[in-house]
Amino acid sequence: MKLNPRGLVPTLQYNDKPLFESTVVLQFLEEAYPDHKPQILPQDPYDRARSSIWADFMTSRIIPAFHRFLQFQPMANKERLQEKRKEFLATIKEFVAEMDPTGPWFLGSEPSFVDFVVAPWALRMWVFDYYKGGLGIPAEGEPGDDDVWRRWRRWVKAVEGRKSIADTMSEREHYLQIYQRYADNTAMSELAKATRKGRGVP
Amino acid sequence: MKLNPRGLVPTLQYNDKPLFESTVVLQFLEEAYPDHKPQILPQDPYDRARSSIWADFMTSRIIPAFHRFLQFQPMANKERLQEKRKEFLATIKEFVAEMDPTGPWFLGSEPSFVDFVVAPWALRMWVFDYYKGGLGIPAEGEPGDDDVWRRWRRWVKAVEGRKSIADTMSEREHYLQIYQRYADNTAMSELAKATRKGRGVP
Repeated sequence: MKLNPRGLVPTLQYNDKPLFESTVVLQFLEEAYPDHKPQILPQDPYDRARSSIWADFMTSRIIPAFHRFLQFQPMANKERLQEKRKEFLATIKEFVAEMDPTGPWFLGSEPSFVDFVVAPWALRMWVFDYYKGGLGIPAEGEPGDDDVWRRWRRWVKAVEGRKSIADTMSEREHYLQIYQRYADNTAMSELAKATRKGRGVP
Repeated sequence: MKLNPRGLVPTLQYNDKPLFESTVVLQFLEEAYPDHKPQILPQDPYDRARSSIWADFMTSRIIPAFHRFLQFQPMANKERLQEKRKEFLATIKEFVAEMDPTGPWFLGSEPSFVDFVVAPWALRMWVFDYYKGGLGIPAEGEPGDDDVWRRWRRWVKAVEGRKSIADTMSEREHYLQIYQRYADNTAMSELAKATRKGRGVP
């Protein structure tokens, strides 16, 4: 709280000065340590700009829709729950449509900035199966399956197979106590409160 | 619409490819044309990261509060109007507290990225005097005046005195027809619609 009055994590302490906002911290580390490999920001200015747009899309569109779906109550209102599910899946589809067609990563054969911004959220989408009656993304060959979802699954597979990403994840039991409160819409984090007010990521 | 399906301006066409989101376009132009002077992105990675944080604060906090205040109806509800006014001014104060104490610009004696992101909004704050019974920022020596508002006024004076900024503004009469619809909460832009839904900048 002393370093970051907004009370959000991660907050980085650099030369005794604070730095926060995940995507800003990521970009800063790339620019402050340009010799460190692998570099996750693309070298081409246009690709770098696209990375900013779609990382921002994650924060401004996908995460709010994720939380509106996750925190939706009452569960008895199947129709409005389905609305939230559809809105969330529409943001994912819009994102996947921007991926390099071959992949498997967002910009092509190597993972970069955007992949690392989206990965942690992709890996916890099982919470919708657990709490919200299903995520709603069709499995291979199921009704509703199409090129976009095929491309999505190829990306998820790459994410799941990346050791550096897997190593940041906890066992599911540790997420359960946290996500139960979100699913019941009783969580008191700033993000949970903002979602209840109809706001975006604080 | 062909270049940017989100239908927002500005959209830049670069090598026949689209680029959008104002702050992304600004950063892109700096990186794509590094020899063009003056450079508006600071050279130091830490200052550059802070610029990102506070430019983002503009988009994620100040603009939504600006529009919740501007679009507030009915005007007869003075109490809730005052609430919106206070929320908006609180975001400005949080921003001003981050300014270099001497200034006059955000980072010091020279204007940079953040100043140019905030300037156009600062220069249309007269709309609150015109439509919403007053902006509420105290003038010099008025009750409520303090160091933060003194610093704010020094910054606004620098902004108003900068020819490159003044040259982007139109005569007030051209804003009036646009802002009347916002003030009546009948505007149909994506931003107006998002504000009515309690959402942030689309």
